[in-house]
Amino acid sequence: MILTYSTIYHDRTIAYGGYSDTVIANERYIIRFLENVSLEANTLLLCAGIRVYSHLKYFGFAEVGKHIGVVGLGGLGHLAVQFAKAFGAKVTVISTSIGKKEEALEHLGADSFLLSRDQEQVQSTMDGIIDTVSASHPILPLIDLMKIHGKLVLLGAPEKPLKLPVFPVLIGRKIVAGSATGGLKEIQEMVDFAAKHNITADTELIPMEYVNTAMERLAKGDARYQFVIDVGNTLATTEP
Amino acid sequence: MILTYSTIYHDRTIAYGGYSDTVIANERYIIRFLENVSLEANTLLLCAGIRVYSHLKYFGFAEVGKHIGVVGLGGLGHLAVQFAKAFGAKVTVISTSIGKKEEALEHLGADSFLLSRDQEQVQSTMDGIIDTVSASHPILPLIDLMKIHGKLVLLGAPEKPLKLPVFPVLIGRKIVAGSATGGLKEIQEMVDFAAKHNITADTELIPMEYVNTAMERLAKGDARYQFVIDVGNTLATTEP
Repeated sequence: MILTYSTIYHDRTIAYGGYSDTVIANERYIIRFLENVSLEANTLLLCAGIRVYSHLKYFGFAEVGKHIGVVGLGGLGHLAVQFAKAFGAKVTVISTSIGKKEEALEHLGADSFLLSRDQEQVQSTMDGIIDTVSASHPILPLIDLMKIHGKLVLLGAPEKPLKLPVFPVLIGRKIVAGSATGGLKEIQEMVDFAAKHNITADTELIPMEYVNTAMERLAKGDARYQFVIDVGNTLATTEP
Repeated sequence: MILTYSTIYHDRTIAYGGYSDTVIANERYIIRFLENVSLEANTLLLCAGIRVYSHLKYFGFAEVGKHIGVVGLGGLGHLAVQFAKAFGAKVTVISTSIGKKEEALEHLGADSFLLSRDQEQVQSTMDGIIDTVSASHPILPLIDLMKIHGKLVLLGAPEKPLKLPVFPVLIGRKIVAGSATGGLKEIQEMVDFAAKHNITADTELIPMEYVNTAMERLAKGDARYQFVIDVGNTLATTEP
């Protein structure tokens, strides 16, 4: 298997992935974007977009009237809100930061916002939760937010194991699941769905020489929500 | 809500549940057994039986050709093996004790037996696992036994949270779920299914005065698989 980045091709060249100026691929592995969409706003669909889209569908959240919680409003979270809304769900953004409220309700169109510490007010109301948090965090409060048969889908991957309280899961016949991504057919379906429903990722286009600054801003949580490196134009201006 | 045991009825008498000599119930809450079945071998169906039956069905394990693991061969486990076999699944009993092998294969009809320490030989082969262990135990080895989309269903309820390794769950789009029991309609369906497929619980019928000895044997793990107290006959011989 040849991975996207830093593995060796059969001809012994190195795979640069998205840092390449050109890529040759079999047509079976090509995704078609409509001509009128912005590529920089759609690159994130190919990673975070398919992750949230595929799981919303696989776990039965992509239905009108479902009440879905979204934990964490970053690259994954801000797309999860938009896709869930486009599927007709009622969406509640769950966050530890009141500063995310306006963003969630006004910009992304979520139906409600829940500060983590206020969650006792709305126990057992959600059909499912998309949890995008990569840091270690307690999941019992999230399990309690869900109705019987609720499904907590983990998209973040904390390094250490999370604590799984069994009894609350067992009593409500609840599910804790994880999911990584979707396949090519579903990626094309997702890209078309996103174009139809005006779903785009919030990105910031940067030139290659801005990368170190971008890394510093990432570390401070100052990205809304992803940096996209303009490799083509950068190479055009720096190469002889 | 009036619970089965030790709660107070509207007339202020105490609920003795299964220790009662007579029980009055609305016909909607009555389960009908065929006349030719042994009641002592079927009492366990009403608790452990419905738990395994309901979850085998709910999680999609009740299909011909599925490969199901059963962890722990006690009251729940020995019924899980029988029901899964009756549904047409291939069943592997997973145990830390080689002493359970003959029981699993000869008596209960499992297709194979897996000593927990040998499990690296059969990684990623199971569609689902019914885990009946109530003690704290690692679930990563069980997650690794399952194919992509595998479902680990916890029926035991360890007191402390289990460690949930997120990345292995996420990569395989796996599910960790819990489940408590099924409803009355499904209990009747399960009892009828059990009668049709000759599924019975292994029980040991004891008189009331044997209870303390039975508790001592339970503590030593010396029950195969459940004691049933013969309340009716005990009361008949001890009452004036």
